[in-house]
Amino acid sequence: MTQVDPLSMWNAGATKDRILKFVLGTTVTGSGTYVLPSDRVAVFDNDGTLWVEQPYYTQLRFALDRIRVLAADHPEWQNDPALKAALDNDIPDIAAQGMPGVAKIVAASHAGITTEELAQAVRGWIESARHPRFKRLYTELIFQPQLQLIVFLREHGYRTYIVSGGGVEFMRPWAQDVYGIPPEQVVGSSAKTVFEMRNGRGVLVQLPEIDLIDDGPGKPVGINKYVGRRPIIAVGNSDGDMEMLQYATTGDGPSLGIYIHHDDADREYAYDRHAVCGELDKGLEEAAERNWLVVSMQNDWNHIFS
Amino acid sequence: MTQVDPLSMWNAGATKDRILKFVLGTTVTGSGTYVLPSDRVAVFDNDGTLWVEQPYYTQLRFALDRIRVLAADHPEWQNDPALKAALDNDIPDIAAQGMPGVAKIVAASHAGITTEELAQAVRGWIESARHPRFKRLYTELIFQPQLQLIVFLREHGYRTYIVSGGGVEFMRPWAQDVYGIPPEQVVGSSAKTVFEMRNGRGVLVQLPEIDLIDDGPGKPVGINKYVGRRPIIAVGNSDGDMEMLQYATTGDGPSLGIYIHHDDADREYAYDRHAVCGELDKGLEEAAERNWLVVSMQNDWNHIFS
Repeated sequence: MTQVDPLSMWNAGATKDRILKFVLGTTVTGSGTYVLPSDRVAVFDNDGTLWVEQPYYTQLRFALDRIRVLAADHPEWQNDPALKAALDNDIPDIAAQGMPGVAKIVAASHAGITTEELAQAVRGWIESARHPRFKRLYTELIFQPQLQLIVFLREHGYRTYIVSGGGVEFMRPWAQDVYGIPPEQVVGSSAKTVFEMRNGRGVLVQLPEIDLIDDGPGKPVGINKYVGRRPIIAVGNSDGDMEMLQYATTGDGPSLGIYIHHDDADREYAYDRHAVCGELDKGLEEAAERNWLVVSMQNDWNHIFS
Repeated sequence: MTQVDPLSMWNAGATKDRILKFVLGTTVTGSGTYVLPSDRVAVFDNDGTLWVEQPYYTQLRFALDRIRVLAADHPEWQNDPALKAALDNDIPDIAAQGMPGVAKIVAASHAGITTEELAQAVRGWIESARHPRFKRLYTELIFQPQLQLIVFLREHGYRTYIVSGGGVEFMRPWAQDVYGIPPEQVVGSSAKTVFEMRNGRGVLVQLPEIDLIDDGPGKPVGINKYVGRRPIIAVGNSDGDMEMLQYATTGDGPSLGIYIHHDDADREYAYDRHAVCGELDKGLEEAAERNWLVVSMQNDWNHIFS
């Protein structure tokens, strides 16, 4: 009988060793760093951490595709810088406005419909839209070593959450199939909703108003709100994940902060300090100072996509 | 070997039969009303549904006890009707301001401290404060038949959530011990929080600003946000639970809406249409129209407290 390596897509070396050591240390009974199953919470950013986020956020492409359909009914959008940029499909301009601009575009493009209708639109789009460079479905651009890590953690009694700047209503329709992560373990940015009875059915209608921007300092806020516990593993790839890693790694017990470093232009992308989206600048310094694990996509992963 | 009745505190009769029939119908493989485990979500209101809410909400007592300690630092509270009533300990005036007034008092009384400090204050209070009539700890005033129902549902693969107008930070510190419900399955009203580093530790600080009022039409909003699925069982006791029951019982599959009717002045309290808190008026008509199950505390329960 051969032993199957649960992290076979991670190359042997210090990175892999540290992950294995942490997981075993927190889960083997009698270990000095043992953690009760109830406290085994691992949080993962999504864009750039679990799947590709270049040349721009996937959800932005979805929102831009939708917003042009709706534009005729919303002449007022011309007066808003972020929405105007969306109508012009001006990606650099949108990117320059950061997560708040993206969140505004997303909220506007999803407004007025029910969460169920939105989920249906997302499903239709995600099953057909293709990435501009790789010409594959976005769900085929999941980082496979990360999928192995998620499964490995779950097999060791961890609950695995997505904590993303992306929209919760955009991720929930497919996160279960793709990551095995159920809707209640997906935390993300959200629009306000309102309850209505429509044709005898109670529904939630999306409003064009931001409720939570689950990015940067908003990530610990989202985690506290949805999870109600401090995670002990946090995995991200950008400055927008820094506070989440700070939160996870400044509790009382053992903890592990992980940054995925995009340094593989051939197989994926190479970017950090000056990226238009997914910038990793201050976070790299913080990683060194706090001894977070920095994963090199190029050196530590022998696979990227399926 | 004797068969143990998992709902022994529920009297034999139509109410108990309907509950048993629904749970078995949704969980026995091959049943025409079978529901996949992933969709077995049951939501319970807390105040008046799982524990006593008279003569006024338990959390309000906690907040009033705290607010007087903090009053000296907040002369501006005298200018706010709800906070003024709180400082005067004027319960009828507070009650007249409804859930928004209570939420405001609660938010003010919890502000400025971290969620961890608040949890500690809650634990200290809940372990010592006593109910004015029953002279027992509030956690001893849990309705035991409901506890049986929660356990019975969990044993049949249901995930049991609290969805309460009460504060999420007030319930999470003890819900696991008392109900077996973990923090991530407690949905409630909340204040805004902000992430800070304090003495090298990442913490969430409570702001004196309301984030969500998880009551009335806010309950389906909270459920969609935290759970991301439509529940198929919803249990409440007041008009503030009506939209939650509407949401749960207007989906595609089988569903069960339950109202607990407080009609037992001897053992607990009797109130409905004209109650100062926990009013059940419009909901009673809605229950008749939508065939929700109305539980009589007097007739259907042979125990109330432990």
